[in-house]
Amino acid sequence: MFQFSINKNFFLQALNTVKRAINTKNAIPILSTLKMEIATEGITLIGSNGQISIENFISIDQENAGLIIDDPGSLLLEANFFISVISSLPSVELELKEIENQQLVIKSGKSEITLKGKDSHQYPRIQEVSPMTPLLLETKVLKELISETAFAASSQESRPILTGVHFVLNDQKQLKTVATDSHRLSQKLIQLENVGDHFDVVIPSRSLKEFTTVFDDTVETVEVSFSHNQMLFKSEYISFYTRLLEGNYPDTDRLIPKEFISKITFNVSSLRQAMERARLLSNATQNGTVKMEIKDNRVRSYVHSPEVGQVDEELETISLTGEDLSISFNPNYLIEALKAIKAEEVELCFISSIRPFTLKGTEEDNLIQLITPVRTH
Amino acid sequence: MFQFSINKNFFLQALNTVKRAINTKNAIPILSTLKMEIATEGITLIGSNGQISIENFISIDQENAGLIIDDPGSLLLEANFFISVISSLPSVELELKEIENQQLVIKSGKSEITLKGKDSHQYPRIQEVSPMTPLLLETKVLKELISETAFAASSQESRPILTGVHFVLNDQKQLKTVATDSHRLSQKLIQLENVGDHFDVVIPSRSLKEFTTVFDDTVETVEVSFSHNQMLFKSEYISFYTRLLEGNYPDTDRLIPKEFISKITFNVSSLRQAMERARLLSNATQNGTVKMEIKDNRVRSYVHSPEVGQVDEELETISLTGEDLSISFNPNYLIEALKAIKAEEVELCFISSIRPFTLKGTEEDNLIQLITPVRTH
Repeated sequence: MFQFSINKNFFLQALNTVKRAINTKNAIPILSTLKMEIATEGITLIGSNGQISIENFISIDQENAGLIIDDPGSLLLEANFFISVISSLPSVELELKEIENQQLVIKSGKSEITLKGKDSHQYPRIQEVSPMTPLLLETKVLKELISETAFAASSQESRPILTGVHFVLNDQKQLKTVATDSHRLSQKLIQLENVGDHFDVVIPSRSLKEFTTVFDDTVETVEVSFSHNQMLFKSEYISFYTRLLEGNYPDTDRLIPKEFISKITFNVSSLRQAMERARLLSNATQNGTVKMEIKDNRVRSYVHSPEVGQVDEELETISLTGEDLSISFNPNYLIEALKAIKAEEVELCFISSIRPFTLKGTEEDNLIQLITPVRTH
Repeated sequence: MFQFSINKNFFLQALNTVKRAINTKNAIPILSTLKMEIATEGITLIGSNGQISIENFISIDQENAGLIIDDPGSLLLEANFFISVISSLPSVELELKEIENQQLVIKSGKSEITLKGKDSHQYPRIQEVSPMTPLLLETKVLKELISETAFAASSQESRPILTGVHFVLNDQKQLKTVATDSHRLSQKLIQLENVGDHFDVVIPSRSLKEFTTVFDDTVETVEVSFSHNQMLFKSEYISFYTRLLEGNYPDTDRLIPKEFISKITFNVSSLRQAMERARLLSNATQNGTVKMEIKDNRVRSYVHSPEVGQVDEELETISLTGEDLSISFNPNYLIEALKAIKAEEVELCFISSIRPFTLKGTEEDNLIQLITPVRTH
């Protein structure tokens, strides 16, 4: 039966990291617990929701952990409840000790709290990722990839593969990340210096969004490894596993147009604000669209809702070339696309009123986005 | 048909004040609108949910309002939608103009938005409060009264009168404020220097909580007036009306005990933290209580949950006098009571294990609270 002492704040931070994977209303009751494995060199905390699993290791050598292990062992504890109890304790010095019948006694200051735990053998095995040469990526770069693409993935389960983000690492050390819900698409290409084994996988966008909250900015790099149905992001102390989506991702390369009849450059934030105004009224229309009209060297946005009213405004442009055009689309897609652009200016390129248009931040050649118009007649 | 121009930010602030009274899912559809009355000296914005009504006046003389009125008039607008539209506008200079069929045209920069409004005659009349000598109160003092008592009012409609706070102003210039849900009670007495007409009213605690958010700290004093079923809090620009609860408030004076067998002084925050720990486990027990035990000059808190575990701790005391005692109560009541105490130390006074105990902050003689124990056998 294990026994250890630890710094409360350090312990809480690790517990809260692992908790991110835990859904207390999981259909599999045991997954509402977290697993504590106490070994001589440190403690491993494990949480999982069946899709994502997070392991956080606390080493006896870590500064500020205050970790002293007297005896090893393991136990399952109701995650939310255990974390609430730990955070309520009066002293930063905690002593945790297992007693008979999977009970845990926690001492802190003059408080003594006894909690019922569960046998750790009831916990499912977190699948291991088969050995491959891991890809070493800067956390910052990976988070950027995610924030620039994952939002474009589908949130609907009608085509499950589209709820994921397609990651492809090819021979030319090029990493392509692309997501689409069939109405809009976002693709980022980056050139790597180091490279691991090639891969071609579809990662659930929800897992990727969770990834960005688990690895904070103090974690500089992560090792990325894949197996046939699982993927692992690993830093010094945290291992983040996610299941992969099965199936073939559609060929998106052929969707990206190359030739255009009109191009407009906007200031990103002023275009976004105009679209937010348009959205207020387009939400009250039947097809939810805004009309953008290029005419006489001016650009205008227009929404008419028979119930609510109308918005009509001239959009400020930085440059405008090509033919007149009128195109209708969901302003929400443009707003979300603009949020992903870090440049101050954005170029929209059009082929026709019924073909997708592209967006690129100026001087951001490696991120391209597509929005499909809505036919309004 | 009215026409005026106004500063966007000033207008938004007033709109958001009035919005606090508006419930967009009101059973009376017209109450999801706000009323704009444009007169030569300024604009009055009005919102109401039937219980609370708020009027905010914007004067042409107010600095920063930028208000210029060309023509008077009035109109109803869907509150949430109108406020979203105003806040989305590009320029701080707004021009608002009524056109045919109760439509409103808003111009700001290069945007022009047209909204459908409604005839202002459809709006119900906000009842006026009959003239009396108003009581002038510091906003800070009134907010303090509210935060110290309103939480103890009942949230259940089984005895509607207990969902209110009892305000009594008597001949001796004494203002008594008391709330109870029959399990706990909080009473504050303050001595006034100025005084208005006497009153004895029960104000819904929900209205009082809303009051504290509407009047910010820049409003130094409010005038308080009452009529038989309504009450008005009035500052220079804002009028806040609330309906009163009908019925007789129970006689609470007789509930407050004067003689005790034991008294304990605690540090407020350390007692509160101990009760928060106790609550984690008491939530998982049948009667939801913590047991506090005075024995051998020590105080101990104890909770045992057969399902979850137990907490057992010695409470740090500052002083302790009187007889041994064991008393069980809902720790949540004690936590909420302690939140209302501004002093660093609190005195708990006990009569017996089955009679209510009192709490007072040290040097806070005008605020007294009562908590009823739970019989556990």
